[in-house]
Amino acid sequence: MKILLINAGSSSLKYQLLDMKTEKLIVKGNCEKIGLKDPIITLKCNGKETKFDGAKNHEDAIQKVLNILTSPENSVIKSLDEIDAVGHRVLHGGEIYTDSVLITPKVMKELEKLVPLGPLHMPANIAGIKACQAVMDVPQVAVFDTAFHATMPEKAYMYPIKYEDAKKFKIRKYGFHGSSHKFITQEMAKILGKSISKLNLIIAHLGNGSSITCVENGKSVETTMGLTPLQGLMMGTRSGDVDPTVVQYLCEKKNLTVDKAISYLNKQCGLLGISGYTSDQRELIAKANEGDERCQLAVEMLAHSIKKNIASYLPLLPRIDAIVFTGGIGENRADTREMVMTGFEHLGIVIDKKKNTNFKRGEVNLISSSKSNVQIYVVPTDEELLMARDTKKIVSALSSKKSLKKSK
Amino acid sequence: MKILLINAGSSSLKYQLLDMKTEKLIVKGNCEKIGLKDPIITLKCNGKETKFDGAKNHEDAIQKVLNILTSPENSVIKSLDEIDAVGHRVLHGGEIYTDSVLITPKVMKELEKLVPLGPLHMPANIAGIKACQAVMDVPQVAVFDTAFHATMPEKAYMYPIKYEDAKKFKIRKYGFHGSSHKFITQEMAKILGKSISKLNLIIAHLGNGSSITCVENGKSVETTMGLTPLQGLMMGTRSGDVDPTVVQYLCEKKNLTVDKAISYLNKQCGLLGISGYTSDQRELIAKANEGDERCQLAVEMLAHSIKKNIASYLPLLPRIDAIVFTGGIGENRADTREMVMTGFEHLGIVIDKKKNTNFKRGEVNLISSSKSNVQIYVVPTDEELLMARDTKKIVSALSSKKSLKKSK
Repeated sequence: MKILLINAGSSSLKYQLLDMKTEKLIVKGNCEKIGLKDPIITLKCNGKETKFDGAKNHEDAIQKVLNILTSPENSVIKSLDEIDAVGHRVLHGGEIYTDSVLITPKVMKELEKLVPLGPLHMPANIAGIKACQAVMDVPQVAVFDTAFHATMPEKAYMYPIKYEDAKKFKIRKYGFHGSSHKFITQEMAKILGKSISKLNLIIAHLGNGSSITCVENGKSVETTMGLTPLQGLMMGTRSGDVDPTVVQYLCEKKNLTVDKAISYLNKQCGLLGISGYTSDQRELIAKANEGDERCQLAVEMLAHSIKKNIASYLPLLPRIDAIVFTGGIGENRADTREMVMTGFEHLGIVIDKKKNTNFKRGEVNLISSSKSNVQIYVVPTDEELLMARDTKKIVSALSSKKSLKKSK
Repeated sequence: MKILLINAGSSSLKYQLLDMKTEKLIVKGNCEKIGLKDPIITLKCNGKETKFDGAKNHEDAIQKVLNILTSPENSVIKSLDEIDAVGHRVLHGGEIYTDSVLITPKVMKELEKLVPLGPLHMPANIAGIKACQAVMDVPQVAVFDTAFHATMPEKAYMYPIKYEDAKKFKIRKYGFHGSSHKFITQEMAKILGKSISKLNLIIAHLGNGSSITCVENGKSVETTMGLTPLQGLMMGTRSGDVDPTVVQYLCEKKNLTVDKAISYLNKQCGLLGISGYTSDQRELIAKANEGDERCQLAVEMLAHSIKKNIASYLPLLPRIDAIVFTGGIGENRADTREMVMTGFEHLGIVIDKKKNTNFKRGEVNLISSSKSNVQIYVVPTDEELLMARDTKKIVSALSSKKSLKKSK
């Protein structure tokens, strides 16, 4: 079974083709600047990148990608028949979708209703689905960034605002990065040899966007991102948590509309805002090590933010099987991990500084001391593989239903 | 030495007279509805409350209070000479005042500059000081709600916004309830028989307004309230932390200005907003016990919020001498304390449920199990006594300086 994954943005469309027998990537690429000046499509195959003419809209993009995949000179697949299903990354499942779902006309209508919860991403996600529907005739699945967090209890997802307004306007914590947190949960079940339903984890997905999720009995019970991905940890360009009054201050002092103030908190703050230099943790630490004080401050603020948020989840679980670091920063920055975990020693949670630095990239690594009461792991995440697995599962169930019907 | 304490609001002025030899309250009272219809002044003395004609402005209020105190029929003091100093509660010391301060003309100018940081409270606080200056001739001291938190490190008080904006507009975490957190720190030094400078505490001041402070070596290093008292924990009518985007949503969905949205988050949310019934924790729990689901939700959300925030400070300290509960809820709600501390057991922090419920009100109580690695205390707070102590200290230093000068 081969599955095509689509992650459609407003002017981009990332794609991956996976072979689900081996769970290996066949090719991947990106349609960039869709409908803009100098659009381009890239194809990455065995480490080699090839460039193609760009697309004028999302449907054109999908058609061109399919042509590229089936073109004999690229020798990726022989015909479209080899693609068994398409999985789409969709930002927001609202309160309706608690898991990935087969896309039907009814689902399409529901997705349209969810646009207000993701006004930037949802229209693009929907355009990606429609484009595939127009040129392909295989089952399509929506995989939601929010779905894994649908199990949060009311005390975690409700904001302390007026109850009626929270319900009427659906103002609540949804959480994001669900595919990554779900993937890590599945991986940890294998690593620890435990049933998912008995797994208690604190997962720190740290990248350009970052969130921490508390997993009890395999289910998300609390997460740092909220109504939008702005809440929670300090991030690359996002502020994360601030006094809500900061929004009012920004409007007044900088003469901004509230929309502009929120856009400012999303795009000009975080590591970039404090350092005035970069949102990239690697560049930031290099510059901090050269003695740049604002970069040093950004590095310290990030570690402080992650440390507090990991700790805040400790008493939510009666027992913790592991604290897991993942994502670009989580997987690759031993210095950040050490800064974050320093201070947990008196709680019996102890990082092994040697294991933390001497380990194999891209593999699962245990970095806690043998004396630690809680194991600390670094586990590479693979959101695309989770999407492909979910898509496969839904489509396989569909085929077996059809075979059953046929055989009757 | 007798000290008069003043807490001036926009239409109220609370006063207390303390005898600093015994640190006991002599009388206290309140000027209510100053300048409004039917103003009134009350005097509480030995449990008896007497009512007097109200005041038309703050100066009138102070004059009337002094008349009441010196009037032979109330027999509080014989003459104004018995009052040695006045201590004023002042909301905001900005980045300038890191401790209580003798009020001089220069200080008055600085206080005026701090009005933008507390537009509701600061003008009233200043009016209270001016009123006293107009009718009394004794040293006056400003005690700031923020001062105790002036020791926070940059990584704790900076928000992850643009560095230049943070500095230019003084948008940072200040923290509040300083007098209570400072008082508890002093008390805990006595209780544990340790030097303040070696004391590591997590102090949960839980009342209608609530904040948690992390104290390292006797100094505040992190606190939950921020630029304003809106940030942090869920409170009586304040939301505490929400996704900053909630402000944008409220503006859009409820057609509010940003100022109205912030006012909404301050006055209509928290326990009141969720329960739709009350901001009072005692009434709330009673109603929840009757089966009211929204009151039950509010109770659970509050405990969840306090629990996460206490836990978030655990790794900020290399060793914790005690977790301390204080304030109206902290001192009086055993049920809330038990809900909050449930879950910390696997970290070696264990509440003793019996000690937590069977104890003497208004006294210091140790409520942790003998097996607990961290002691948990309930300690009554006394912000007024802290204010009086600070005032006495500053005025005494002044007198000794003067005596020195005179003797030279």
